[in-house]
Amino acid sequence: MKIAVDAMGGDNAPQVVVEGIEKARDEWSDLEFVLYGDETKIKEVLQNNKNITIVHTDEEILGTDEPVKAIRSKKNSSMVRAARSVKDGENDAMFSLGNTGALLAAGIFIIGRIKQVDRPALMPTLPVTNSPLGVNMLDVGANAEAKATYLQQWAVMGSIYAQDVKQIKEPRIGLLNNGSEADKGDTLHKEAYELLKNTEEINFIGNVESNDILAGVADVIVTDGFTGNAALKATEGTARIILHELKKALMNNGFFTKMGAAIVAPSLKGIKDTFDTSRAGGAVLLGLKSPVVKAHGAADVDTIFYTVKQIYDMLLNDTVNKANTYFEKMQSDK
Amino acid sequence: MKIAVDAMGGDNAPQVVVEGIEKARDEWSDLEFVLYGDETKIKEVLQNNKNITIVHTDEEILGTDEPVKAIRSKKNSSMVRAARSVKDGENDAMFSLGNTGALLAAGIFIIGRIKQVDRPALMPTLPVTNSPLGVNMLDVGANAEAKATYLQQWAVMGSIYAQDVKQIKEPRIGLLNNGSEADKGDTLHKEAYELLKNTEEINFIGNVESNDILAGVADVIVTDGFTGNAALKATEGTARIILHELKKALMNNGFFTKMGAAIVAPSLKGIKDTFDTSRAGGAVLLGLKSPVVKAHGAADVDTIFYTVKQIYDMLLNDTVNKANTYFEKMQSDK
Repeated sequence: MKIAVDAMGGDNAPQVVVEGIEKARDEWSDLEFVLYGDETKIKEVLQNNKNITIVHTDEEILGTDEPVKAIRSKKNSSMVRAARSVKDGENDAMFSLGNTGALLAAGIFIIGRIKQVDRPALMPTLPVTNSPLGVNMLDVGANAEAKATYLQQWAVMGSIYAQDVKQIKEPRIGLLNNGSEADKGDTLHKEAYELLKNTEEINFIGNVESNDILAGVADVIVTDGFTGNAALKATEGTARIILHELKKALMNNGFFTKMGAAIVAPSLKGIKDTFDTSRAGGAVLLGLKSPVVKAHGAADVDTIFYTVKQIYDMLLNDTVNKANTYFEKMQSDK
Repeated sequence: MKIAVDAMGGDNAPQVVVEGIEKARDEWSDLEFVLYGDETKIKEVLQNNKNITIVHTDEEILGTDEPVKAIRSKKNSSMVRAARSVKDGENDAMFSLGNTGALLAAGIFIIGRIKQVDRPALMPTLPVTNSPLGVNMLDVGANAEAKATYLQQWAVMGSIYAQDVKQIKEPRIGLLNNGSEADKGDTLHKEAYELLKNTEEINFIGNVESNDILAGVADVIVTDGFTGNAALKATEGTARIILHELKKALMNNGFFTKMGAAIVAPSLKGIKDTFDTSRAGGAVLLGLKSPVVKAHGAADVDTIFYTVKQIYDMLLNDTVNKANTYFEKMQSDK
């Protein structure tokens, strides 16, 4: 199994990427890695090239680049080269810490979608208070527009993913909606509800509301990409702002408060651990012919290690083809 | 100026409602109140009936009632009677702590919308870290479906509200979207962007993303009711869950942590104050012929006092008619 790695994306590339890959290589001896990026810089930090090949690239896609344009014009960038290698069958999966939009474009236009899926979806793992496995939410923004059938496809792929990678036997699939009752929502979500209710092989638990995302009421939450994007960003933004205000309050209020803060610090670390999803890896672009995963630009060595594990689980279980087979069967049953 | 009060809605009705109204009555001598509800229960808690009239009602709309059905069948409920009194011109505005859906239905079907507004919108005030005035967001769920022209109408009404009630000269109006660039969004939001850009008399600042709602980047955020509902609930849910985890961490970790928690408590209260929006009053149902405001079911005396102030400001400034005039002019300019 060979994984194509865009070694140049992210805040601390290529150092943190190379360190994470070496850690993963030391753990799983049946994995090979091809690192796409600046050969000199990669060699500076690489300790041991066992099972690791470097392919030199001299272009880089920046976070500020317009995604589709970047993919088309920077043909020798680490991201495009990595994607092309998967398309050409040289590698089995790819991952990147770079520009999310560009990775979506590379996934869709270079690697390509599985035939039975109309639109690939972006699926991160969010933390929940009652399980270290978190909740997967899709789509969170690969698509601005959606149809009910897309949501049905995403539900099936999310369910298969939760079975294969999170080892949940019957993943609870919820539909993000504006109320919990069955008749809630706009036309799109009412239609999606009916489709999901009648989709065999998924354990549909009905509507969930976005105030319950972190409460762990579902294993997979299906949503259109526009609403999912708003719910994800509101969740992340609120957490960031509250934790920032908390830190400010504990640090800027004189000696006694600082002393108190030092005393409570270990307990507060427990909260940080509850909301830590680094073991879940990165956000998966589901619906492509091969696993494509986006890790956060600020990902550390451990997150990269677990992202490799995530890809490894998808390859071992043939997660992508399993979804394809399901959809082909669904198609022929019609 | 006469305000119709649904005295029976909310968790601690009628006691907290009556106390709040008496406090407001003592502050603004030119306001009169008509309390709709159980006369015996209201009289038990009413200290002084100056400028306060009671109209006895013997039905109550519960939080669990189906909104439209409740409005149609419980004609002698405090909420329906209060709404009817505004429709009939006996009172100039109404407010309730009861069932939000039922209040929306009462507002739309009994009081009625202003002619030039296609769909009334629900607009709460959310806290922001950089101003006690918070941010108004509309629509957060009065409508599951939206058109770009609705969003334009909501932007104008939100802007007039922020001028009249929050005393902001040129309120910054943002469009909730899935990216900050001008070309972002689905068809609806791209159309809305163009309309807002070309709407005179509003200070349109472009797209805002939901991770910035609490950061205070806009005074009014316009959104379709489905996305707004998801963003609002994700924001509220995340804040609730994090603060709950924080409390748990500080209280369940033994003696030293509790001691530390006691030391930092005054500083943490500062955060609570930052996120306190009780002075903003309740959520306004904008687009109706008269001011209709929904206060939270758990609202305290102060929130009710400030909700009256909010209604008072809208009546003094003729906020509702000002929007109507604007739309009539817009119509005739076409």
